[in-house]
Amino acid sequence: MDAVTLLGLVAGTLTTFSFAPQVAKAWRTRSTTDLSLATLIILLTGILLWLVYGVMKEDLAIIAANGATAALIALILSVKARHG
Amino acid sequence: MDAVTLLGLVAGTLTTFSFAPQVAKAWRTRSTTDLSLATLIILLTGILLWLVYGVMKEDLAIIAANGATAALIALILSVKARHG
Repeated sequence: MDAVTLLGLVAGTLTTFSFAPQVAKAWRTRSTTDLSLATLIILLTGILLWLVYGVMKEDLAIIAANGATAALIALILSVKARHG
Repeated sequence: MDAVTLLGLVAGTLTTFSFAPQVAKAWRTRSTTDLSLATLIILLTGILLWLVYGVMKEDLAIIAANGATAALIALILSVKARHG
């Protein structure tokens, strides 16, 4: 793996894990009332488009980071859908 | 501009603007007590690394999206530094 890809994977790990406390809190409390549904949907749409962009560019770092973040945000949305 | 770059710019617009309501709120209220400093610093570090990644890959969409988002998060951090 080249240095630039490694840099991208480190960057992706940081930006993805910045969502981890929010996911853990939503999962633990089952409460997402204060999270804006519009924001979550806009963010998820943007991240899924980044994922498509990464696939088209064959860019491993972009695919990994946005795949992982999309899964985390989908988890938050699933808690919101079931518990409001 | 090719279609893939355009897709990246749309993706970046969505992910960047998902922060806009938070920036507007912090700027208006001058209150950021409930925002985690650790999260903001981890997120800003990750986004600055993405910016370096974009420059090294000469990827316009990554540079534009992460440059704009870094500026927004720096703005939130400046409110937090001055007003707590």
